[in-house]
Amino acid sequence: MSELVVMKFGGTSVADPEKIQRAAERAIAARKKGKRVVVVVSAPGEMTDELIDLAHRVSPNPDSRELDMLMATGEQVGISLFAIACEARGVGATSLTGPQAGILADAKHSKAKIVEIRPRKIHEELKRGNIVTVAGFQGLNPHRDITTLGRGGSDLTAVALAAALGAKHCEIYTDVHGVYTADPRLVPDARLIPRISFDEMLELAGAGAQVMQSRSIEVAKKFDVPIRVAHAFDRHSPGTWIVKEVSSMEDALVTGVALDRNQIKVTIRDVPDKPGMAADVFDMLGKANVNVDMIIQSAARGQSNDISFTVPKDDHENAIKALETVQRRLKTGSIEHTVNVAKVSVVGVGMRSHSGVAGRMFRTLADNSVNIQMIATSEIKISCIVDKADGERAMRCLHKAFGLEKTRRGYAAR
Amino acid sequence: MSELVVMKFGGTSVADPEKIQRAAERAIAARKKGKRVVVVVSAPGEMTDELIDLAHRVSPNPDSRELDMLMATGEQVGISLFAIACEARGVGATSLTGPQAGILADAKHSKAKIVEIRPRKIHEELKRGNIVTVAGFQGLNPHRDITTLGRGGSDLTAVALAAALGAKHCEIYTDVHGVYTADPRLVPDARLIPRISFDEMLELAGAGAQVMQSRSIEVAKKFDVPIRVAHAFDRHSPGTWIVKEVSSMEDALVTGVALDRNQIKVTIRDVPDKPGMAADVFDMLGKANVNVDMIIQSAARGQSNDISFTVPKDDHENAIKALETVQRRLKTGSIEHTVNVAKVSVVGVGMRSHSGVAGRMFRTLADNSVNIQMIATSEIKISCIVDKADGERAMRCLHKAFGLEKTRRGYAAR
Repeated sequence: MSELVVMKFGGTSVADPEKIQRAAERAIAARKKGKRVVVVVSAPGEMTDELIDLAHRVSPNPDSRELDMLMATGEQVGISLFAIACEARGVGATSLTGPQAGILADAKHSKAKIVEIRPRKIHEELKRGNIVTVAGFQGLNPHRDITTLGRGGSDLTAVALAAALGAKHCEIYTDVHGVYTADPRLVPDARLIPRISFDEMLELAGAGAQVMQSRSIEVAKKFDVPIRVAHAFDRHSPGTWIVKEVSSMEDALVTGVALDRNQIKVTIRDVPDKPGMAADVFDMLGKANVNVDMIIQSAARGQSNDISFTVPKDDHENAIKALETVQRRLKTGSIEHTVNVAKVSVVGVGMRSHSGVAGRMFRTLADNSVNIQMIATSEIKISCIVDKADGERAMRCLHKAFGLEKTRRGYAAR
Repeated sequence: MSELVVMKFGGTSVADPEKIQRAAERAIAARKKGKRVVVVVSAPGEMTDELIDLAHRVSPNPDSRELDMLMATGEQVGISLFAIACEARGVGATSLTGPQAGILADAKHSKAKIVEIRPRKIHEELKRGNIVTVAGFQGLNPHRDITTLGRGGSDLTAVALAAALGAKHCEIYTDVHGVYTADPRLVPDARLIPRISFDEMLELAGAGAQVMQSRSIEVAKKFDVPIRVAHAFDRHSPGTWIVKEVSSMEDALVTGVALDRNQIKVTIRDVPDKPGMAADVFDMLGKANVNVDMIIQSAARGQSNDISFTVPKDDHENAIKALETVQRRLKTGSIEHTVNVAKVSVVGVGMRSHSGVAGRMFRTLADNSVNIQMIATSEIKISCIVDKADGERAMRCLHKAFGLEKTRRGYAAR
């Protein structure tokens, strides 16, 4: 059977009729090469936000099942217009909603997980030679209701479909040229990374890089689906391949640098120094759905410790409520919230086989008068919490210190 | 089991968040009286037209399956916002697309017929005490594709649902107060008709009255579902009941007067006077999907006749093509198209038992110097083709001649 490719076009790539036509031409080009083509389409432009806004004009707190029903129309508009554009160019195309495409999800509205894909109808349409456009971001739950997959849901649809259909790879078309060594808006000499491993991409996404959500990368890694991220309308853009790690990747010490300015540092003073206290604190935060990122516990001073950790800005309100309970129940000291922090991270599988990355990072920051407030490491990532005002400068000097602007692995930012 | 009511809100009644909330309050009021409530919702405001326009910006001739997929999003937006509005007022509500509601249609895209309704999910949700909002205008075809039901499709959904669910009646909420003795924009002293029979309403719709499409009335008649047409936002509007004929309706000679300015008169000169010629002409027009309305064949003059008939403006282009074939094959004389005509009709079941309606109609038109070009009659309707410039005047003088402005059956236009 001929090669099957899954292409995904994001909202900015299908924002208006003219863009939809250009995106359709890209899918048609692949079809004309004899490939079987499945296209995952997002809601055009700002449509999802407009629909949410409409719902909020009807109710301050819209029912989540109904909000999913409403939001799902955005992608349905995208797939039908995309199919119309293909048909107008004489190429057969059939649009399928998430439920029609056999994307079965769990019952958690607004952030459902894909449970299974039954692509019978997709195969039928491919067999008839049609391009199949599938609505991203949505699925059918066990109650046969439409549900949505949360932020980055269309990428997830694309990667999961590529896995289920046995596609050679998954192409994510977007409004950037791929994954960069750093955010090119902040670091002008950032370079496009031609190849990056799933693990590095996961760490970069977790460290604040916004190209793709972690969930889709996790699925791609699990089913070993190579992803190509490229610009929707620049055929000469080589893009970035996100792939299984190969040994040559370790040649570079560091693959990328990321900055996350959406973290808040919380410090709980005078936590009694008894076994299980830290567990109690983070249990209560976990139950309040607060994602804790970095944690530092100071050495005990007498009968108590200070515990510091960071939480995403979006979780801060939940964290504040949970911490009031912590303070009351555990009889801790005061709780301090620091909003003017940033997290700067360096990521690279090369760290595993090369020592000295941490040392060079801390030295670089010190040389540039950036004070480090907290440190956290994984096997392939080192993150530091710094003053928010120092964030961009920290990223730029680390980018330079690890030679990212001249590495052979990248092309200049456009 | 408690009484079940089907309410339908048209696009103008759900055009913005404020109107959706007011419409929802109407449904909630019925629910709070203990009724089981099914609400059929149209696409808000101009959304359907905007979606069609979007499709035409992508392709001059969009694929009909995909256009249905696109248009169906309009009603989906309507049902979810309506349900959100109910939930915001503390009343459980569940939205269902046409396919989810079990509305099965045939495969004719953009003007499908409802084949069957399997309302299992509607019953489930009603049992849970929820208001069920159902997307009008759409169904699932045998290929499991979304299909739309054509102009007036939401009314059809509502009436068919009322029949399938055994509702006591069907309430059509719209931006007018009901059915009038004549179009109140043209005849200022037109009065609201409190009760009208299915047959009269069918004739009025066919004669150009735009309150409801014939298809929904036919279904209502077939399953004997009384329809109440009323203003969505005026609780004191008594509305019009469209019901099975009862003998008291015959007290009035004429129930309403209608004007249709969307007809074109076609005359074929010198059609050879041989058996089967007229059949040939109208066969060819029928095959070209031209709906012929009134037909007149002049008395034979020697070897040939003139045949005149009217067609709706929308079918005129098809008619012109078909008539070229007619002219060539049947070797007729010239073909004349007259666009400046109008059809004025009087409708009433009273005609069956009272004679003299035709005479009074023709006399009235003559007294007012309105020349009659063609005449057609049914058991309960008389239509005349007149000069377009005379149309409004003809309607007004007939309205007066049959005493419609003072009949006890109506209320003054608002």
